[in-house]
Amino acid sequence: MLGWLRQYRRAWLPGDIGAGLVVALMTVPQGMAYALVAGLPPVAGLYASIAPALLYALFGSSMTQSVGPAAITSLMTAALLTPLAAPGSGLYGVLAAQLALMAGAVLLLCGALRVGFLANFFSRPVMNGFTLAVALVIAHGQLAPMLGGALAHPHPPSAALGVGALVLLLLAKRYLAALLVRAGLAPGPAQICARLVPMLLVLGATALVALAHLDAAGVRVTGVVPGGLPGLNLATSRAHWGALAQPALLVGFMIFLMSMSAAQTLALKRQEKLHSNAELIGLGAANVASALCGAFPVTGSMSRSAVNFAAGAHSPLASVISALVLMAALLAPTGWLALLPLPVLAATIIVAVLGMLELSTLRTAWRYDRGDALALLATAAGVLVLGVEAGVVVGVALSMGTLIWRASRPNIAVLGRIAGTEHFRDIERHGGYTMPGLLMLRIDANLFFGNVEAVNTRIEDELAAHPQLRDLVLVMTAVSSIDTSALFALGELNDMLRQRGVGLHLAEVKGPVLDRLKNSALPAALNGQVYLSALKACEALARP
Amino acid sequence: MLGWLRQYRRAWLPGDIGAGLVVALMTVPQGMAYALVAGLPPVAGLYASIAPALLYALFGSSMTQSVGPAAITSLMTAALLTPLAAPGSGLYGVLAAQLALMAGAVLLLCGALRVGFLANFFSRPVMNGFTLAVALVIAHGQLAPMLGGALAHPHPPSAALGVGALVLLLLAKRYLAALLVRAGLAPGPAQICARLVPMLLVLGATALVALAHLDAAGVRVTGVVPGGLPGLNLATSRAHWGALAQPALLVGFMIFLMSMSAAQTLALKRQEKLHSNAELIGLGAANVASALCGAFPVTGSMSRSAVNFAAGAHSPLASVISALVLMAALLAPTGWLALLPLPVLAATIIVAVLGMLELSTLRTAWRYDRGDALALLATAAGVLVLGVEAGVVVGVALSMGTLIWRASRPNIAVLGRIAGTEHFRDIERHGGYTMPGLLMLRIDANLFFGNVEAVNTRIEDELAAHPQLRDLVLVMTAVSSIDTSALFALGELNDMLRQRGVGLHLAEVKGPVLDRLKNSALPAALNGQVYLSALKACEALARP
Repeated sequence: MLGWLRQYRRAWLPGDIGAGLVVALMTVPQGMAYALVAGLPPVAGLYASIAPALLYALFGSSMTQSVGPAAITSLMTAALLTPLAAPGSGLYGVLAAQLALMAGAVLLLCGALRVGFLANFFSRPVMNGFTLAVALVIAHGQLAPMLGGALAHPHPPSAALGVGALVLLLLAKRYLAALLVRAGLAPGPAQICARLVPMLLVLGATALVALAHLDAAGVRVTGVVPGGLPGLNLATSRAHWGALAQPALLVGFMIFLMSMSAAQTLALKRQEKLHSNAELIGLGAANVASALCGAFPVTGSMSRSAVNFAAGAHSPLASVISALVLMAALLAPTGWLALLPLPVLAATIIVAVLGMLELSTLRTAWRYDRGDALALLATAAGVLVLGVEAGVVVGVALSMGTLIWRASRPNIAVLGRIAGTEHFRDIERHGGYTMPGLLMLRIDANLFFGNVEAVNTRIEDELAAHPQLRDLVLVMTAVSSIDTSALFALGELNDMLRQRGVGLHLAEVKGPVLDRLKNSALPAALNGQVYLSALKACEALARP
Repeated sequence: MLGWLRQYRRAWLPGDIGAGLVVALMTVPQGMAYALVAGLPPVAGLYASIAPALLYALFGSSMTQSVGPAAITSLMTAALLTPLAAPGSGLYGVLAAQLALMAGAVLLLCGALRVGFLANFFSRPVMNGFTLAVALVIAHGQLAPMLGGALAHPHPPSAALGVGALVLLLLAKRYLAALLVRAGLAPGPAQICARLVPMLLVLGATALVALAHLDAAGVRVTGVVPGGLPGLNLATSRAHWGALAQPALLVGFMIFLMSMSAAQTLALKRQEKLHSNAELIGLGAANVASALCGAFPVTGSMSRSAVNFAAGAHSPLASVISALVLMAALLAPTGWLALLPLPVLAATIIVAVLGMLELSTLRTAWRYDRGDALALLATAAGVLVLGVEAGVVVGVALSMGTLIWRASRPNIAVLGRIAGTEHFRDIERHGGYTMPGLLMLRIDANLFFGNVEAVNTRIEDELAAHPQLRDLVLVMTAVSSIDTSALFALGELNDMLRQRGVGLHLAEVKGPVLDRLKNSALPAALNGQVYLSALKACEALARP
């Protein structure tokens, strides 16, 4: 906690201040827009960017992560809460905060249980498929707000404003940085300036609405944004604890996965180490803070974190500064924000999520591993056809299925002795000779419930292929652990082999594995011996 | 399909006929009782024992499996359907058949997709915890029927009948086989006779009710059991397809796990091979058949299968004979079944499920691997506290958590050259010397999304420990596959190392792995070389 503050170097300060300012300016339109995606008033997006960022700076482990509203969690909030309350209603706001509270509690609990290894839950293709589909769902959902009406019946002034903003944003995204570089700016600052375009555009559009009275012409605007800081404002609905349990698990899970995936990318670039359990605590605290301000679930934002890093952030102080700037903005007069046109906000969201449409993973996977490519497409299809909630379940099922499938195919090698040496190697790869009546199998995996059946099946096959077998030696060089399921399976294998008059021997069992086995009945019941090495087993069991 | 019939030997016939008869006699009280557990009329349990057993004989892969009503699936049926309809109502019966239909369809689909490897989903302790808790829940649920009223307010004649039956059954279970052996019977037949006690007791109790008019005294009886075979009787409720989707997945999953676990035990004893995909098809067909007869979900029954095997069954013909006997029983006058006293039926269930209370797994796990023991207890607590549905979810979460945890801890060894040889070994275990500026790491696991982060972290640690490093060699002897996530991770590692001026080399890459890598951009981008062997890499990279 606050380890970074103790090691803080003065040289980091300019970078942290600059990055804090840039991220704050980026957060104003993005936070308000994601609040709208979540079905909440725009100011909730600003609240969700202040206290959570401060709490994450206290407890989180990534140095450059920007925590606040994000595309995926906002969409999930809307998808999960809409069946329970009408967006915009008072109950809906209460449930959004309650969801953040419960998700935060789940994350804190997971952190206390130290299950941060769960960050390895999703394969990259599954994660990418999920992200792609969420981007499409969000972009599709923002079309009507951008046009001021359905695609077939747009509201002309709104549509002009929205589509104009969309075109400007796309052009700026594509060309502005290059233009600024050609005008003499360094590439880094040029990139950062390009990231501030949405804020400038929002300011310009607001001015345009004010001057041309476009709100009177039917262009929808954000309306009054209450000034001042959020107070402690946690209301919860007693009736909904049960109904929110599963949503809170799902949202908490995705908060962690999304944030870790963003943080890992940056950690690799910064050559720093992430602590997944600290991340859980940091994200949990951030979400509880968001709930206490009456906001909604937050997570590490890939896009803002990347800007934070690129703008020179060295430590979480950048996020603290960003939060302070947002607080100052809320303390200043906020009247002008009331005229911010929603079509322009919708256009900024569409451009932001189109940036998530990264197809290179699909292309690479398609050429490299068709199964992974299909998992990506299936997850995306799950989100698009069945909804974001079912999409997470499809992704989990596919990732877990892959995991079990891999676990259920351990490598098992028949060992042969290399002529003239004391070495035993896989006979399929290195040749070597075997003794009659003796079979030596090397199991290249830890033995556990996921692969015991495969080991059994392989042994059955080998027994069928070697009817003259008198001794089977399991060479355990690569076995670092044997779980309870595998212990039982070994015991049953031992019984079965005894019935058939085949000895079961173990060789090269690692020290800790053997120590643990001694807490079981297996060594005493073993229908054979435990040998120190494959060589000793072979010498003892070879018969003339 | 029917492979066993082509290889049928006449010598098997007596065993199959005997086992078929014994299992049929065992099924009458058990099937009726489990139908009551599932919230259905007793005759549904008999229907569920006929067509499903025949279909399984056609499509299944286990030779001695007895498929029909079982404790866990019946309890899950009741738990999942009670929120949707009142037990005993017409809708409830319709939903039970619909649940079997959908679960059967899920199983058939899984069989077609060849995902039989999912049988490795639950660790043995998790499975045991689940079974223990279900046994307790069922036994608890049968207390009131056995006593003819709540524990505090029993109905004396019912309680006398129920408790009397319970005591007789427990005594018979404990002592009868031994007594019969002492009386001169061989141990095998003695065991089988002991298994027929419930049927005899039910017959005796029915006679007692008829003679003493106990039904008039308030002892509840099964009531009229319609004679004749079940017709095609599939009614479904349109409104409930959606509501039954998740229950069908859960029930289908448990049907497969329970049946595989029973079949594996027997397959090991019979030294035969199970085909998990054929099992999926067999169980799927059996459940569709159950639905078509208007019954409920069925699975392979551990207790009946064990009796079937012990009674001499050699092939699925035993199940066919068993089904024919039950059909004959339904075609004979069934009037006498109407007076079967429910307290006695409840007592038979209690004794049957108490047999599932096997604590040896917990004892072994407690001594051998405390984590596995806690997983067992957590799953049992999940079922007892949160219900059977949540219990499955807890079990899945714990099994998957364990899987990911294991996957996230691959063994990675720093290699040293054994002095005077060309061998490279784990320096921690075998010593050996290393070259300055050169680090050789052997990764003892297939690279995939579950462990790439661990590999990255380890490499980061090694880089921090070796600031003078110029070359890193990954020795891929044990790597049989690299998935898309790991491919990306290797690419990012390569970029990171290039930035630091460290070469990334690969050695001993297996042929198929290298072939596949050539479909990616990695070999061309590699900031180093691919070497045939660790020795060649070492010779090329060692610097004076």
